[in-house]
Amino acid sequence: MAKAKTSRSPAPAQSEPYVVIIAGGKGERFWPQSRAARPKHLLPVVGDEPLLAQTLRRVKAVVPAKNTFVITSAVQAREVAKVCRGLIPSANVVAEPAGRDTAAAVGLAAALVGARDPHGVFAVLPADHVIHDTKAYQADLRAAFAAAGAAEVMVTIGIPPTEPATGFGYVQRGGEWGRVGEGKAAKVVYEVKRFVEKPKLEVAQQYLKSGDYMWNAGMFIWSVPVVEAAFAAHAPELDAGLAKIRSALKKKRPLAATLAKVYPTLQKISVDYALLEKSTNVVTIPATFDWDDVGAWPAVAKHFTPDAAGNVARGDVLVEQAANNIVFSEKGHVVTLLGVDDLVVVHTADATLVMPKAKAQDIKALLAKVAGHKRAAKLL
Amino acid sequence: MAKAKTSRSPAPAQSEPYVVIIAGGKGERFWPQSRAARPKHLLPVVGDEPLLAQTLRRVKAVVPAKNTFVITSAVQAREVAKVCRGLIPSANVVAEPAGRDTAAAVGLAAALVGARDPHGVFAVLPADHVIHDTKAYQADLRAAFAAAGAAEVMVTIGIPPTEPATGFGYVQRGGEWGRVGEGKAAKVVYEVKRFVEKPKLEVAQQYLKSGDYMWNAGMFIWSVPVVEAAFAAHAPELDAGLAKIRSALKKKRPLAATLAKVYPTLQKISVDYALLEKSTNVVTIPATFDWDDVGAWPAVAKHFTPDAAGNVARGDVLVEQAANNIVFSEKGHVVTLLGVDDLVVVHTADATLVMPKAKAQDIKALLAKVAGHKRAAKLL
Repeated sequence: MAKAKTSRSPAPAQSEPYVVIIAGGKGERFWPQSRAARPKHLLPVVGDEPLLAQTLRRVKAVVPAKNTFVITSAVQAREVAKVCRGLIPSANVVAEPAGRDTAAAVGLAAALVGARDPHGVFAVLPADHVIHDTKAYQADLRAAFAAAGAAEVMVTIGIPPTEPATGFGYVQRGGEWGRVGEGKAAKVVYEVKRFVEKPKLEVAQQYLKSGDYMWNAGMFIWSVPVVEAAFAAHAPELDAGLAKIRSALKKKRPLAATLAKVYPTLQKISVDYALLEKSTNVVTIPATFDWDDVGAWPAVAKHFTPDAAGNVARGDVLVEQAANNIVFSEKGHVVTLLGVDDLVVVHTADATLVMPKAKAQDIKALLAKVAGHKRAAKLL
Repeated sequence: MAKAKTSRSPAPAQSEPYVVIIAGGKGERFWPQSRAARPKHLLPVVGDEPLLAQTLRRVKAVVPAKNTFVITSAVQAREVAKVCRGLIPSANVVAEPAGRDTAAAVGLAAALVGARDPHGVFAVLPADHVIHDTKAYQADLRAAFAAAGAAEVMVTIGIPPTEPATGFGYVQRGGEWGRVGEGKAAKVVYEVKRFVEKPKLEVAQQYLKSGDYMWNAGMFIWSVPVVEAAFAAHAPELDAGLAKIRSALKKKRPLAATLAKVYPTLQKISVDYALLEKSTNVVTIPATFDWDDVGAWPAVAKHFTPDAAGNVARGDVLVEQAANNIVFSEKGHVVTLLGVDDLVVVHTADATLVMPKAKAQDIKALLAKVAGHKRAAKLL
């Protein structure tokens, strides 16, 4: 990726920002609490509300509720609508008739915002991250809106790494691109040299050491024209399909019918690969907030206060001679552990999981077995 | 104990045998399936019926249903009556108002049988043993009835040990006392030298090697006069209390009211200690049937066919990369194990237990914790 080439023609001063929350996910890694129709963002994995609701509450000081959209999948639409009730207008929840990866979702997001404001600036944010420092998050988001509103750039919020993670893509930052905000609130925006896919451990260790690399958390802030131009330039095939959605929205045709027809035909490709890796106008703001994507059960532990033996529990849990376990139980059921260490034990009304923390990555192998069960449709 | 001194005045030829099943137990070792009100004998720990029902079916070819009594505790009485329904008359289920150990229960048993037949021969048998070879069991029981009907002896069925168990008392046999039965069905009856309490491992190993010792399984066969004489001789205090029960039964007074008044005052002592260790007329028949008291969860495994990885499961259970586990799940709930070995996992509607097999003996420590739970009354 070359040096960011940008012009700085600001968007109209009064325009309000938009946000599109991408609420997808397969619901595998938090099984049996998560299911296909109830993945991580619909669960209170951490906190008292589903992560999606927490995300909506976190952005609402920055973006008006009427400008907040949620894109989800058909199978999750009902539950997502329930969580969104009272937080955003129900018409702002849009269901993809089929999963077509993130580029299509971003194209749909741009179409939704563009139908309201052809010059609109919007953020695309994941629904299922855990962020405790809401004030810092909102400040970073405001800075990103300011940058994306001031110039034809794609802004990504990069997460400064705290460990050599191999499960995330990375963003390599370049020199200073500019500054947004005034005085103490001023933030440096950096050029992006390149996006890199999930690295091997040794490479991740170098990234961590260098200080130039940040985790790509899938948080992008940009304007409708910038995104449309990127689709036209780097993903023309996909853009042709998206044009039909934009046209239907302009003509106020029913969206669901258009999506049912067009969406399944869209190219299946990630937005990183389709647009960001190929664009030269990408900039980044290093996040000043805490961030965790809580990738699987063991990651939950650090958000809870453990007992003296290091056990983390939610619900009715009794342990004896047991250490460093993670135990979740549903209401009205007591889970008891005697003499076991380092396990994950999760009880729900119809299924219980027992595994060592170290085996959390192998849960797909177990779910393949569950898929053969006579009640698989309900269990998965 | 000296050589058995016995006279051989047989009981009347037509008298039918009686049996009194002792269905007590605390319901701790099979928690959470077992509870105070639902101990092991009320569970289908092995097989498809509660162990009590299996015991009743096993004896019914030897003893008529009308002559079969069950003594249980007040807290278990309702469930016991349910299991006995259709198998024995409901009036034959008698509840102890308070647990007073086995000597009092045997005294009550003798009173119940004596009210029907003052010379009656009866067996006292535990309700919660697992025995697969019913024919051999019935043959041994018939031999014991024959011996107890032919002479003033206390017959115990001894279990030839298969390992140096430290959890059972032992019976040391002496020389041949006599024979019962004809031809191929003839069985040797041995004198009993002494009863010994649960030994240390080294002692148990000597017992196993000697061939003279058998496990005391709490199976006794004797006549009403023999038992009454033993109480009078060796436990006069207890006998005085039991006399009130015998008298009430003779006068056809309501048994429950008498028990409520008298039973809690009875001396709390085991029948082994109160009678058998002090009697000189004890003989034994070595069991020719298989026998298991299934003392705790790990003992269950050998009664099931394991999968290729050595897992034993009942109910909806799915395992992946898991070996040598024992997993029980209740209907409509699937228990899944990923990457764990040698665990016991038991799921019931309101409680789940996860422990290594090796920790099964420590379950009391866990139950002490459960006792502090707000729903302890239901959970225990």
